[in-house]
Amino acid sequence: MENFTIYNPSKVIFGENSLAQISNEAKKLGKKILLVYGQSSIKKTGLYDRIIHSLEDFDIVEYSGIKPNPVIDDVNKAADIARQNQVEMIIAVGGGSVIDSAKLISVAQHFEGDAWAIMKHEFQPTIATPIIAVLTLAATGTEMNPFAVVQNPQTQEKIGWGSPLTYPKVSILDPNLTTTVPVDYTAFGLADMVAHVLEAYFGDGDSPLSDSFAFSIIKEIIQIGDELLENPEDYQLRARAMYAGTMALNGLLTQGKKGGDWGVHAIGHTLSMLYDTPHGATLTIAYPAWMKFHSEKLEHRIEKLGKGVFGVEDKQTTIHLFEEFFTQIGCPINLEEIGLNQENKSEIVELLNKNHASGVFHSLDENAREYIVNLMFLKA
Amino acid sequence: MENFTIYNPSKVIFGENSLAQISNEAKKLGKKILLVYGQSSIKKTGLYDRIIHSLEDFDIVEYSGIKPNPVIDDVNKAADIARQNQVEMIIAVGGGSVIDSAKLISVAQHFEGDAWAIMKHEFQPTIATPIIAVLTLAATGTEMNPFAVVQNPQTQEKIGWGSPLTYPKVSILDPNLTTTVPVDYTAFGLADMVAHVLEAYFGDGDSPLSDSFAFSIIKEIIQIGDELLENPEDYQLRARAMYAGTMALNGLLTQGKKGGDWGVHAIGHTLSMLYDTPHGATLTIAYPAWMKFHSEKLEHRIEKLGKGVFGVEDKQTTIHLFEEFFTQIGCPINLEEIGLNQENKSEIVELLNKNHASGVFHSLDENAREYIVNLMFLKA
Repeated sequence: MENFTIYNPSKVIFGENSLAQISNEAKKLGKKILLVYGQSSIKKTGLYDRIIHSLEDFDIVEYSGIKPNPVIDDVNKAADIARQNQVEMIIAVGGGSVIDSAKLISVAQHFEGDAWAIMKHEFQPTIATPIIAVLTLAATGTEMNPFAVVQNPQTQEKIGWGSPLTYPKVSILDPNLTTTVPVDYTAFGLADMVAHVLEAYFGDGDSPLSDSFAFSIIKEIIQIGDELLENPEDYQLRARAMYAGTMALNGLLTQGKKGGDWGVHAIGHTLSMLYDTPHGATLTIAYPAWMKFHSEKLEHRIEKLGKGVFGVEDKQTTIHLFEEFFTQIGCPINLEEIGLNQENKSEIVELLNKNHASGVFHSLDENAREYIVNLMFLKA
Repeated sequence: MENFTIYNPSKVIFGENSLAQISNEAKKLGKKILLVYGQSSIKKTGLYDRIIHSLEDFDIVEYSGIKPNPVIDDVNKAADIARQNQVEMIIAVGGGSVIDSAKLISVAQHFEGDAWAIMKHEFQPTIATPIIAVLTLAATGTEMNPFAVVQNPQTQEKIGWGSPLTYPKVSILDPNLTTTVPVDYTAFGLADMVAHVLEAYFGDGDSPLSDSFAFSIIKEIIQIGDELLENPEDYQLRARAMYAGTMALNGLLTQGKKGGDWGVHAIGHTLSMLYDTPHGATLTIAYPAWMKFHSEKLEHRIEKLGKGVFGVEDKQTTIHLFEEFFTQIGCPINLEEIGLNQENKSEIVELLNKNHASGVFHSLDENAREYIVNLMFLKA
């Protein structure tokens, strides 16, 4: 085991009707709220009205229109509103894109410049507005970690950032708020969770109990996957998916390790940047290819993974069973499935190289990137 | 899954030389320290000197002599010292007995009366002195939870108590500080961890991922048990045991559940109260008997446990394999092994009844207690 620190101050209120606690939690933080959300879906489902009604004693300003692959421009505009109104808290209602954006808004509110400077570590924030997150999509784990992923269309970068300041103060997780998520995005969410577990698992350091927790989470997701997609309104299945997503990226799985690898996410972010592909779908394409590329170097790890998750011994079968699961839940496992062909190859490789797409522990050079792109075009 | 809240503000600094961070952490809290520890062992090992040296810039008052089964009298005396010296933090160096006592001292410092009134919920504390814990024994999980177990020889009670105020602010977990723990107490620690996992597992509510995490922790403990007792100075094995102990009782395993049962701990506390039996040893005697008593009612749970931990199907074999593991690491599994005989039976039953020893979800009446005591006398 490696040295590590456990510290996660987020309070997660999980369960049926947990939304009822929003007003009590908000009262502890002040009176002036910036409410951040995405497209119109929270208005359609009635969630917007429920929240506004619960918060009728507060002063609310709003910023809506956060995109599914969130952009820095929205962060800057929302931070301006937060600054002008001196809001005391940000209430973020949505999935990863909204809550990630809120994390950057929470620090950008206290910074006069372009928030992209924060993401590029050119400015080190020392203060953040507290965030209450209301999660409507089980996927990224953002509800219990300090990380944010935002893209900058100008520079063609989509990158991650985080600070101990940006753990949500409170996250409200009511599985009922996810029952209206369409089947495809539900599946992308499950895929994202699996990818988070794998990024931790393939990180550096030997922590047997963390490996075992990792297998537990992947097995849970595989176990509920099919059934959830067939019964998207089942509370218990939605609850299990939501809980798995939180545990997949709240620090648990890198305890005793140096950290996760994140090479596959780097590849996925580049694909989203180029084609606006949903995040989860980029990962189900990139992970099998990445494992195939590393299958010699990571032979023992892939074998241990196969044994722990599927009860199989060899690495080829393990990778194939992941492909099979992704396919089964309707996620793409190669680039042709998202409408690309060999003509797109060079632009993908080029942007991967420009963005230095690589992992923390398993680095990727130009040859590796090209090799992986070729693998991403192969059929299973 | 049941509704639940995740909130655990303890910062755990884990690993080799983590003790070096004690001074930095203490600086954040003030200058006046109450140093609490147990018997002379931290002086023998040199740990006392290392800590005093690290804290030479602070004002330190001390309270030593906390007993392995800690008593309320020591808590009251230490709280007096804390109050008189207006200490700003408590540094607790030891295992569960010392850290649990520190939790009560931290609230009793701000209360004029007998701290037993706090344990009996006759006084509700609203403020606590922050605690830095330096853990020297992997067992109780106290380093990352708010709970304390203390006994009162006058009333013949040994009970648990906890408050959101009494999470340690910082816990320093250096596995090297546990390498001098004797083999028997190392084993009692492992047994305690297994019992904590089982208390959560047999609590109410269906949370499949929590079950899977529970099996992971028990399997980890079984996997390292033998090897650790043969190589008590092995850093990696000590680290794995220490980490397992923290995860066994930091809230993880009751997420999605109504809570743990704690019936077996109630029985164990009564045995410790009567015979000063080490806590872990009381649990390895009580758990198999408790499972046998509940084997009809909890048939499916015991079978799932057996499948998840040992890969066996039936409940008898499962209970037997737990007995086998406890025996293998040198822990007693019946009352004769700790020197008791049928003549002690009535006093045990009597005190169990007087203390209303029972679980939260699986209640025990007078007949049940007598039945379980009979089972605790049976050989495997």
